[in-house]
Amino acid sequence: MIAPSILSADFARLAEALDAIRGADWVHVDVMDAHFVPNLTLGLPVVESLLKATDIPMDCHLMIEDPDRWAVGYAEAGAHNVTVHVEAAKDPVRLARDLRAAGAKAGLSIKPGTPIEPYIELLEEYDTLLVMSVEPGFGGQSFIADVLDKARTVRDLVDTGHLNLVVEIDGGINADTVEQAAEAGVDCFVAGSAVYGADDPARAIEGLRAQAASAHERFTA
Amino acid sequence: MIAPSILSADFARLAEALDAIRGADWVHVDVMDAHFVPNLTLGLPVVESLLKATDIPMDCHLMIEDPDRWAVGYAEAGAHNVTVHVEAAKDPVRLARDLRAAGAKAGLSIKPGTPIEPYIELLEEYDTLLVMSVEPGFGGQSFIADVLDKARTVRDLVDTGHLNLVVEIDGGINADTVEQAAEAGVDCFVAGSAVYGADDPARAIEGLRAQAASAHERFTA
Repeated sequence: MIAPSILSADFARLAEALDAIRGADWVHVDVMDAHFVPNLTLGLPVVESLLKATDIPMDCHLMIEDPDRWAVGYAEAGAHNVTVHVEAAKDPVRLARDLRAAGAKAGLSIKPGTPIEPYIELLEEYDTLLVMSVEPGFGGQSFIADVLDKARTVRDLVDTGHLNLVVEIDGGINADTVEQAAEAGVDCFVAGSAVYGADDPARAIEGLRAQAASAHERFTA
Repeated sequence: MIAPSILSADFARLAEALDAIRGADWVHVDVMDAHFVPNLTLGLPVVESLLKATDIPMDCHLMIEDPDRWAVGYAEAGAHNVTVHVEAAKDPVRLARDLRAAGAKAGLSIKPGTPIEPYIELLEEYDTLLVMSVEPGFGGQSFIADVLDKARTVRDLVDTGHLNLVVEIDGGINADTVEQAAEAGVDCFVAGSAVYGADDPARAIEGLRAQAASAHERFTA
């Protein structure tokens, strides 16, 4: 699955940016509050407008403090997937259950420097693990390959039937990095600059998907 | 002056929302961080896109914590007017000077429950006083007429030559409230729902401006 991030789009023309990525599996929306990360992007009123403008399932990535207070609002608004940070959630089990009760898939994200091991059991409550491959806060950063160990760890638990969730990756994903992420067992690839920086965003999506699929075949062969 | 607020616009189509208010004096942009106010709207990346999409001078109202850290970025991006809250600014004199040095007009905003008297001297450093006539955080609220005393106090100081700044008001301004605000000496009127909820936003702007001008004439007669 490819999830283009509108963080790299023209915020004055988001409806057009959504039209440009027809064929995307999810659209990734980066919500930042200038507290959890040093940037302020957009919040629920913008997400509500975006939900009216597209049928692409919306993947809301909440890089915010106190997601226990705010995340359910995004689920209630109609987001397909609402992802909170393990470093920010106070009661991640309850939060996952609240998100699912509100009709969304529950996602858990983890910064590059946070180890996954203490949170493995928690993943039973979640539908998605979003592995950050850059420090969250800004688009256009370089891929941190070390985080792929986290993807491999969780992929093994999925393949052996111990967990059932989507492994997603976000940060520095492009034609040069998508294959190594796919080989580590990633299912869903967030791509910002690699899609919106391309002349033809829809074609860039197809290209990334083909690369990921072929790398995944090699990996499972 | 009329400053339509895009808080009431369709966030998926902001370029169109800006086109719809040709004739506006300023466009008012509400930046909220989910900490200073209980809502998260949009931040600098969105403002940067908006600045590329319009020539209307941009009036950025920062309802955020720690404006001392963030406000100058909006000035450097090209906002015409950058307004911070007196309740949030740690060093409002230095902040006003930094905003002006970065090429913007410096604005100071005050919540309905905050008295103006302790801050009168501070206004010498500012180009705009933004009197909030609702609790900041959401559009579509009802006008709090009590705050007009603050506008009157500052207007008197402007008329007697003790201060030189624009008196702006924000919250619940529409055809029913614009005249009493103009009579209290307000120069600039932020209007959200009254403009973007109208069938013809440009005509709504003209209507509000005409009402304000005629009330102002009565007031000064």
